[in-house]
Formats: sequence, C-alpha cells, structure tokens
Amino acid sequence: MKKQNVRTLSLIVCTFTYLLIGAAVFDSLESSTEKQRKEVLQGKILLNPIKHKIESIVRRKYNITDEDFKIMETVVLKSEPHRAGRQWKFVGAFYYATTVLTTIGYGHSTPSTIAGKLFTMCYAMIGIPLGLVMFQSIGERVNRLSSVIIRSVKSSLHCRQTNASELDLICVVTTLSSLTIAGGAAAFSRYEGWSYFDSVYYCFITLTTIGFGDMVSTLHEAVIACITDMEASAGAVRLEGDVITANGSILSGHLDHQCTETTSLDPDDTSVCSCHCGCFTNPARNRSIKQQLIELDCKN
Amino acid sequence: MKKQNVRTLSLIVCTFTYLLIGAAVFDSLESSTEKQRKEVLQGKILLNPIKHKIESIVRRKYNITDEDFKIMETVVLKSEPHRAGRQWKFVGAFYYATTVLTTIGYGHSTPSTIAGKLFTMCYAMIGIPLGLVMFQSIGERVNRLSSVIIRSVKSSLHCRQTNASELDLICVVTTLSSLTIAGGAAAFSRYEGWSYFDSVYYCFITLTTIGFGDMVSTLHEAVIACITDMEASAGAVRLEGDVITANGSILSGHLDHQCTETTSLDPDDTSVCSCHCGCFTNPARNRSIKQQLIELDCKN
Repeated sequence: MKKQNVRTLSLIVCTFTYLLIGAAVFDSLESSTEKQRKEVLQGKILLNPIKHKIESIVRRKYNITDEDFKIMETVVLKSEPHRAGRQWKFVGAFYYATTVLTTIGYGHSTPSTIAGKLFTMCYAMIGIPLGLVMFQSIGERVNRLSSVIIRSVKSSLHCRQTNASELDLICVVTTLSSLTIAGGAAAFSRYEGWSYFDSVYYCFITLTTIGFGDMVSTLHEAVIACITDMEASAGAVRLEGDVITANGSILSGHLDHQCTETTSLDPDDTSVCSCHCGCFTNPARNRSIKQQLIELDCKN
Repeated sequence: MKKQNVRTLSLIVCTFTYLLIGAAVFDSLESSTEKQRKEVLQGKILLNPIKHKIESIVRRKYNITDEDFKIMETVVLKSEPHRAGRQWKFVGAFYYATTVLTTIGYGHSTPSTIAGKLFTMCYAMIGIPLGLVMFQSIGERVNRLSSVIIRSVKSSLHCRQTNASELDLICVVTTLSSLTIAGGAAAFSRYEGWSYFDSVYYCFITLTTIGFGDMVSTLHEAVIACITDMEASAGAVRLEGDVITANGSILSGHLDHQCTETTSLDPDDTSVCSCHCGCFTNPARNRSIKQQLIELDCKN
C-alpha cells in the first residue's frame, strides 16, 4: 500500500478513536446532569412513586385541557425566538450574514422562508471563500508585522540570529490568540453579565467557528436600541442619518420598542436545584406551585 | 502603500460590502415574516384594537397566576431539549464530538457543566487541527484518484493531453459535492420526512460547517433506539454486545424508553396561518382557544 494511503488511513483511524474517546468523556461528564434535569422536570426524583410531572401538577391545578395546554406550549416555544427582539432588521441581518460568512452559524436566527434559505445557500457559496481569502490575507499581514517586530526586538537585544523563526511566529500567534480570547472574554463578561469562564467559552466557541448558539452576544441589539434612542431624542436625524434597508424602509423607524425589551425568561434563570428537591432557584416564580410540590412531597 | 496591504484592504472592503448587501437582502426577505409571526403571537393582527396576546387569552380562560404561568413557561422551555431523547449517552455524545471536531456546532446539545465546557475547549484544540489534517489528506487522495480516472478516460478517448488539469479537478470536485448533497438530501428527505429542498438546505449548511441547528438529523437516535430494541429482544447480548461508556455503565442499559418517543410538539407543527387570522394550522390543538379567538374577533 502506498505511503500516502497509509497516512490517510492512519489519520482516519486516529480521528475516529479521538471521537470515541471524546464521546466516552462527554457521556461521563454530561449524561448524569442531563438525566437529573429530566427527572426533576418529570417529577421522578421529587414525587416518586407517584411520578407526576411538574407540568401535570400545574395542569391539574387549573384543569387545563390537553389541546389548550398544547396551544400554550406552542405559543411559548414560538415566542422564544422573539424574546431577544427583532432579529431580521438590518443590524440583526448583518449579524446573521457575518455568522454565515465566517461559518460560525450560531443559529440564534435562521431563515424561515424558502427565499431566505435559498439566498443563504447562494450567499454562503461566494461569501465563505471570500471570507477565507480575506482572513488568510489578514493573517499574512499579521505574520509579516510580527516578523518585523521580532526582528527589531532581536536586533535591539543583540541576538546572533535576527530572523523570525517559525517557532517565534507560532509563539506570537498563540499569545495574540490568548490575548484576544482573554480581552474578548473580559468585555463580554462586563457587558453581557456572563461569568468570566462562560465568556472565555463563548469566545473560544466563536473563534473556532463552532458556534453552538447556546450563548449568543446580544450587543448588536444594543446597537439597535442605540439607533432607536437616537431617533427618539433627535427626530431631525430620522430622514438623513438612519440606515436604509433593501426594501427602502428606515431601519429604526420600523423598530418596535416592545421587541427590544430584555426579558428575564431565559430558561437558565430557573436552574434546576442541586438539592434534588425539584424546586426552582428563582424565588419569584415558584411559590404557589412549590407549595403544591411540598404538599405532595409531605403526602409520600 | 505596499501591494499586499492594498490587496488586504481591498479584500476587507469587499467582504464588508458583501456583508452589507447580504444584510439588506436578508432584511427584506425575512423581516416581514418575522414581524408577522410576532404580531400573530401577540394577537395584534387578529385582535386589534384590543391587542390581547393568545397567551393572555389562555391565561384569562383558566385564571392562571403570573408566577404559575412563568413556572409553566420554564418547564416547557426546559423540557424542549429533552423531547428528542437523551442527547448525552454514548451515541449522542459521539454525535456532539463530531460536531465539535468538524466545527459544525449545531448546538442541539451543548455542555451544561463547567467540566463539560472545559473539556469541549481542550477537545476542540486538538480535535479541530486533527480533523482538518484528516480531511485534507482525504481530499488529496480523492484528487489523486480523480487524476488517475481523468487520465485513463482521456487516454481512452484518444485526447492529445492526457494530464488532469486544475479545471478538470475543479469540475470533478464540484460534481462530487453536488452528488453528495443531492444524494444526502434524498436520504434525509426519505428518513427524516423533510421536504427535498429542506434536506438540500440541511446538507449545505452541514457541509459548509455553518451548522445552524435549526434542522438536526436525529438518525443517531434511530441507532440508540436500535440498540435498545436489540437489548430488549436479546437479553444475552446485554453483557457482551453493548457499548461500554467511560464511567463503566452499559449504554443501552441506561436508556429511558420514554426519552426515545417522538413527539409531535415541534413548534413548526403549528405554523402561523398565512390568512392573517392568527389561527393555527394544526386542527387537533386549537378548538377551544380558536373558538374564543373567533368570539373575540366577532366582538370587534
């Protein structure tokens, strides 16, 4: 067998093994938490052996019919993407276009029309290579600048070899990447109110273009809000200073103030309590149902 | 200014312009649909000038308190990721590891523990370069094979030049990519029940590693279900044939049959009606609330 074929096969085997190891570790790290969350939601931990879901306790309390509950469920799920405000006005659409071009693809907003999906595909077909070439070009320039700086530093330190080696460049790139992540994380931690660790995680997931979308910066919404505020405080700007969208409408003129409100209804606000009691940690939400839960718990 | 700097600057300007154009088009394509959906959910279209949300109609009907509604909302939102079954058992974790390594990052399952997030970062730091090298190596092998085939075809056709040119290779790669997408789309369309267009969109978004996560194949759950069935039908396999996870537990032994049930509660099941009446298209869900909606509509 040819040497290159052996190399390719070895790489495939290596990657597959790496995936298997990863799967085993992720399973051991996340599986128990997932199971616990599910069981709390299904009331298995709390209400064993009755096994009532929290959902059914609420439904029983109000005697909600199946179809009405399904409508409520649908309204809640369908309202969720709208909570963070309008995602498809110009600034949001620009954010979306950036996630397509960089292949980050958070998925916090995704096209729902056929035309939108079709345009996304055509857009990505040109945009992704364009983005790659641009980032490569910027990388080359950064490398060149780094070489010049390394050379001048080395000559000022009277080193024998003043040329920038590959190792030097790797060190510089690693330092720059770390600084970018550390600085970015500090900024997101400050403005998004995330923990520093979560902000580092967000920056890493974004810069590697994985882009899960479990954490998405809403700073672009601050831009929308800023434009809206400008519009409210200075009506004269309205006709001259605003961003014009493709269909000719004025960006901030179409903003719905109701949409930009931040909501505390992030599901993570109500985290599953670690004490296995099945209660929710947000005290404002849980009194009456919690009382029922306690009552049911006492009966067992 | 140096030629390379001009090139980089031009590329930045080009990409930025491309993003602006994209944003304008996405805005015009998606913004109105988003607005319409939001208005239907908020009852603005249907119940103007009363402007009751569908949500508040249901709440009024049952007289649900704010805090109980918020608990219900939280339970619905927190239950959503569990609907598709356990995501972190071995097969699901393998699927997740693959989305990390390839930078697709659907985000259908994301780590919720600090250890999981930390391991994801470490895992990606080695995994992504490994994946890139592997795919590059496979690409080289495919190119080599294509060159051999092109050369033999050309020589059998008695062409003057039998060497495979770059253009030939581009044609072959384009054809292969199109066939992969077309074939993959046919398979997903068949097994996931998606429309062919949606399947093409899914394959494209996956192969470009954008990975929004708005559509995620659940075929790996079929694998889980298959393992569970095997286990149920042949108890003897239990101790020998099952996959062992990192913490020593048997994969299928921990599977909850309740988790693998498919649910019809996908929010898209209840799509927003195009007739602006604000009703839902799934008839099974909407009789009593719809009646209320109609009654309210008649009052206006």
